[in-house]
Amino acid sequence: MRITIIGLGLIGGSLAMDLRKSKFATELIGVDSSEKHADQALKIGLVDRIESLEKGVENTDIIIIAIPVDKEVAILAQILDTINNNTTVIDMSSTKRVITESVRNHLKRKNFVPAHPMSGTENSGPTAALEGLFKGKITILCDHEDSGSQHLAMAEKMFQVLGMDIAYMTADEQDHSTAFVSHLPHAAAYALANAVQSKEDRSIIFDLASGGFNSTVRLAKSSSTMWHPIFQQNRNYVVESLDVYIKHLQEFRDCLYNEQDDKLHDLIVSANKIRGILEGENPHFVKNEEKIVKLYTK
Amino acid sequence: MRITIIGLGLIGGSLAMDLRKSKFATELIGVDSSEKHADQALKIGLVDRIESLEKGVENTDIIIIAIPVDKEVAILAQILDTINNNTTVIDMSSTKRVITESVRNHLKRKNFVPAHPMSGTENSGPTAALEGLFKGKITILCDHEDSGSQHLAMAEKMFQVLGMDIAYMTADEQDHSTAFVSHLPHAAAYALANAVQSKEDRSIIFDLASGGFNSTVRLAKSSSTMWHPIFQQNRNYVVESLDVYIKHLQEFRDCLYNEQDDKLHDLIVSANKIRGILEGENPHFVKNEEKIVKLYTK
Repeated sequence: MRITIIGLGLIGGSLAMDLRKSKFATELIGVDSSEKHADQALKIGLVDRIESLEKGVENTDIIIIAIPVDKEVAILAQILDTINNNTTVIDMSSTKRVITESVRNHLKRKNFVPAHPMSGTENSGPTAALEGLFKGKITILCDHEDSGSQHLAMAEKMFQVLGMDIAYMTADEQDHSTAFVSHLPHAAAYALANAVQSKEDRSIIFDLASGGFNSTVRLAKSSSTMWHPIFQQNRNYVVESLDVYIKHLQEFRDCLYNEQDDKLHDLIVSANKIRGILEGENPHFVKNEEKIVKLYTK
Repeated sequence: MRITIIGLGLIGGSLAMDLRKSKFATELIGVDSSEKHADQALKIGLVDRIESLEKGVENTDIIIIAIPVDKEVAILAQILDTINNNTTVIDMSSTKRVITESVRNHLKRKNFVPAHPMSGTENSGPTAALEGLFKGKITILCDHEDSGSQHLAMAEKMFQVLGMDIAYMTADEQDHSTAFVSHLPHAAAYALANAVQSKEDRSIIFDLASGGFNSTVRLAKSSSTMWHPIFQQNRNYVVESLDVYIKHLQEFRDCLYNEQDDKLHDLIVSANKIRGILEGENPHFVKNEEKIVKLYTK
């Protein structure tokens, strides 16, 4: 299988590692607008060769797009214009409505499978690539009825090879849920980093930062190149999630300020329930086919 | 050295492990108001024997208090009332003003060394104890001029044995900095857990939660028994930190809502600076004696 990866950063690079190791890819072609990243990716051995965008998308089985969401919107239609009829195009982006909308009426829309693998780190570039980054995580496939069945099957197979579970949602549902579970935590971390830096000396932060602070603020290290366009494309839902978050913070703050001890206690105990949710304590939340059918739109 | 540990949870239990392993403690006595925790600690071998509070604080070299801050305030004076002249009492609590104030005029105030090791996890109880939890982290010693020099030296030696660096601050400085670097991240995580639970189905959260969400919300698993009294004792500074945080979140939200793209970009780039701070990129922030003298009040 010949696979072309456009964008050799954390996501594209990690995919390359696992697709090669699993032998799903027999030939890996890399495309990157940064000459430095392209050179690094070739040197590390992530891909077999580097091509221009025009040449890289010719005569290939799968094209994976793993670039910032504003860059993707700018080239997706152009990629679909030039591919063979059998080529499957899969993207990896965190937002989906603006992207699917941009090719809604494209003649090759069926070749495109919009995907969002829920995995990453706060680091970027080819040297940040990690083996096994996707294993055990979930990929959201969006508006799957708009993809051709052969292309959908190809994408499903690829994500299964990576060891991922698959959820099916509309682009709108994915953008809403992702606003709360992924984009909001990033915004919360950016604001926390700025709040603490505004009040405490650099040295004090460096000295006192323990595992707890590091964990909560970790996502604030994430690059603006990737995250600014995500916030822009998912503006309305991220604003909604920030409004909900600020309301809950204000409630916590007011309970503390007004010495409403019982209510503050209840807020903490309610928040503690996230442990059971994340650890899948309730047997109903064990992954199984029935649940996916029930929950999602497939 | 005979050491009595009051409170055999995550902190007390982890201390017991390292103090025994380093041979700093030759005899470890445990005190815990929970019979279940006392039994577990004895069974795991964290301590050599369990005693009542009254008997445990008699004829011992060091008493370590590692219990919730409200419980500590309730028994600290009573412990100082009954100890030998040579016994050193060290606490581990996250707040310091209310606690030091409660024994300000005690005849044995010099035996007490108020300490705050900046380390922990979101888990609690003796079974959560971890070897090496404190290694490479920092302990804040507060109002050190109020402790007798022999007791201060004993505490410094113990923390050095644990592999910790030491910072010196007033109780007020520690409560302010800790509000921003530790208590605020906990409040932020509690509110994030509540915000997301209010808008998204449990199953969606379980399925979509990636490393980023898990990291940002991790502290929301922390127990109310420990954290509610910390918020109460440090009410004013935690409210201040929440006000600063909400202001920064609102600014982020407004920039996004009003499409102020340049300003939003600047906010993200400014937040990114936390990476350099936490990784100690600036050579001025390498730990050395000069800096500690300059920064802190010793």
